[in-house]
Amino acid sequence: MRSVWVKTNSAEYPVHIQPNLLGNLAGQIQLSYGKTSSVFVVTSPEIWELWKETFLASFQKQKLDVHPLFVPPGERHKRLSTVERLAEELSRAGARRDTLLVAFGGGVIGDMTGFLAAIYMRGVRYIQVPTTYLAQIDSSVGGKTGVNLRTGKNLIGSFHHPVAVFCDPAILSTLPSRELRAGLVETVKAAALADATYFRWLEKNLDQLLKGEEKLLTESIQRSVKIKAEIVAADEHESGPRMLLNLGHTVGHAIEAVTGYRSLLHGEAIAWGILAAVSLSVERSVLPPSEAKRIEDLLFRLGPFPKFRASAKALLDRTAADKKHLQKSQRFVLPVTIGRAVVVEDVTPPELLAAIQSMLRLAGERGV
Amino acid sequence: MRSVWVKTNSAEYPVHIQPNLLGNLAGQIQLSYGKTSSVFVVTSPEIWELWKETFLASFQKQKLDVHPLFVPPGERHKRLSTVERLAEELSRAGARRDTLLVAFGGGVIGDMTGFLAAIYMRGVRYIQVPTTYLAQIDSSVGGKTGVNLRTGKNLIGSFHHPVAVFCDPAILSTLPSRELRAGLVETVKAAALADATYFRWLEKNLDQLLKGEEKLLTESIQRSVKIKAEIVAADEHESGPRMLLNLGHTVGHAIEAVTGYRSLLHGEAIAWGILAAVSLSVERSVLPPSEAKRIEDLLFRLGPFPKFRASAKALLDRTAADKKHLQKSQRFVLPVTIGRAVVVEDVTPPELLAAIQSMLRLAGERGV
Repeated sequence: MRSVWVKTNSAEYPVHIQPNLLGNLAGQIQLSYGKTSSVFVVTSPEIWELWKETFLASFQKQKLDVHPLFVPPGERHKRLSTVERLAEELSRAGARRDTLLVAFGGGVIGDMTGFLAAIYMRGVRYIQVPTTYLAQIDSSVGGKTGVNLRTGKNLIGSFHHPVAVFCDPAILSTLPSRELRAGLVETVKAAALADATYFRWLEKNLDQLLKGEEKLLTESIQRSVKIKAEIVAADEHESGPRMLLNLGHTVGHAIEAVTGYRSLLHGEAIAWGILAAVSLSVERSVLPPSEAKRIEDLLFRLGPFPKFRASAKALLDRTAADKKHLQKSQRFVLPVTIGRAVVVEDVTPPELLAAIQSMLRLAGERGV
Repeated sequence: MRSVWVKTNSAEYPVHIQPNLLGNLAGQIQLSYGKTSSVFVVTSPEIWELWKETFLASFQKQKLDVHPLFVPPGERHKRLSTVERLAEELSRAGARRDTLLVAFGGGVIGDMTGFLAAIYMRGVRYIQVPTTYLAQIDSSVGGKTGVNLRTGKNLIGSFHHPVAVFCDPAILSTLPSRELRAGLVETVKAAALADATYFRWLEKNLDQLLKGEEKLLTESIQRSVKIKAEIVAADEHESGPRMLLNLGHTVGHAIEAVTGYRSLLHGEAIAWGILAAVSLSVERSVLPPSEAKRIEDLLFRLGPFPKFRASAKALLDRTAADKKHLQKSQRFVLPVTIGRAVVVEDVTPPELLAAIQSMLRLAGERGV
């Protein structure tokens, strides 16, 4: 089995990656975490329907009780009220401090289960079993957990690492193609900011990856997780290098917010956000046009991405941390070459506006 | 100024104790935490009405904005929905990761503000300014934060230490006498389990303390906090010695639960709980009857405590962690001499029932 270890000041845990690993989860868990008499699985009704037989088989063999707890799909359920309801279900079922939670779903379920684990009885252990490509390579690793407020996404949360992550690429066979493509945007981002060799590998293998070839998916999950694990190890609480992972996210988040989180998947918004960052880097002459083109080309092979309605001015306004910052220079992640990016603090509003306008022209030409 | 330092693996912070310290809070805060442009104070309308002038004076002098956020008094507001509302108010007011919260109130406000600080933007700093004797000596120190579920108290929470605690004994002048007496129960508990010298000091000075003599209150807050700080330093996450602080809490919590948290203040229920533990220790011949009598006498000088309606059987049932544990021996804190207690794991249901019955007889004779 392929494993990547995440080592931070506060935790150390493996990310295991292997096709069909789901069918032997109970054995893996007992091997690592000793006898537990029951396991609580937070999942969506849809995922459970698709995978419960595979999931339950190994637990029945090991005589381990499994209690599924359900969360309806969708970002709008990522709220404290859902976490409270789950906590009350745990409490009624007798879950104590030594309980083990399993997050079995995409990013929303992973973030919310991690947060539930962080605050139930002041902290219990949990395992991530991500079921989307994006969750496997990104949100399940690094310990960021949380929920949304009416006033913004992920404004409530904790840093609380899982005791292990189990990525089964075979699960991705049921993932809609659009979601796989959007997930691969974050892989392109990771390669673009940290690993030129992996970027070339992606240029060579992207078409096969998009076909869902299991061996290549396994390889790309491992490489992407490794990049994230190294950055998280260097900066657990996002005071320095971890900000690099926000490449494309300043403008990407603004697009999501302005379009009400409805028209685009997260990865799709980030793709446009990366293109804005690339444009800004080229304008500043810190990224050569030939390398900018390689990033653009690779991203567009993951498209087509949906168009969206948003004015440059509205997007610019949403990039500011708050209204007081609207007139000031702000922090931004700039790609400087394939495989390297930097965090700068001096991006001015006019500069950012120009990059957003350039991205909007691209979106007008190549969005669908 | 008197200060006790709390040193744990994850944090190190002072508890400052001084009469009229509230009038110079802003100076103290800026001294320790540098320039912050605004401070968010979580408090109750009642406390704010009584103390806002004193509180605000030093902030106006230092030109620091103060935003009060209000929580109605009472345990029933200690819920996730209140925390969510406060978080949205913070977010709308533009509070960022570098914000500073101040918990200005009793234990409920302290626990809830600490939890808000733990989870707002994955953690911001907070200061405790406890306004009850109980909060000053107990709940403001040690980093336990949280809220209740419908299914039980403090089932949701985090360990999140304040950056400092400011105890102003002058604030206690507006505290109802019944609350001071109930708070002093936890002081008697701390002395009984950890500090024979302090226990003798209490025997000598209790009557003056009950009159609210500021110098004695300052002394007793300092001594009580020191006991708690030492125990928390040895065992931040309650896996060992910190359990000693639960002396009287097994039966005390059961009384609170069975009476619906209505008839007794927390400290009053704990007083009866300590009396049950004393009875069990005497039955086991681990605590000499003469020392048992000293604990009983000191506690009753804090009375009279209210009677309550609860059968021995109902109380016994509530002491078990869950139904599976009803038939088993359980963990219990036993006083063994004035100034020392131990955690044992072998208290049987009949033994505990006898202790509860003995306590109920006492309550019948001496409760009001």
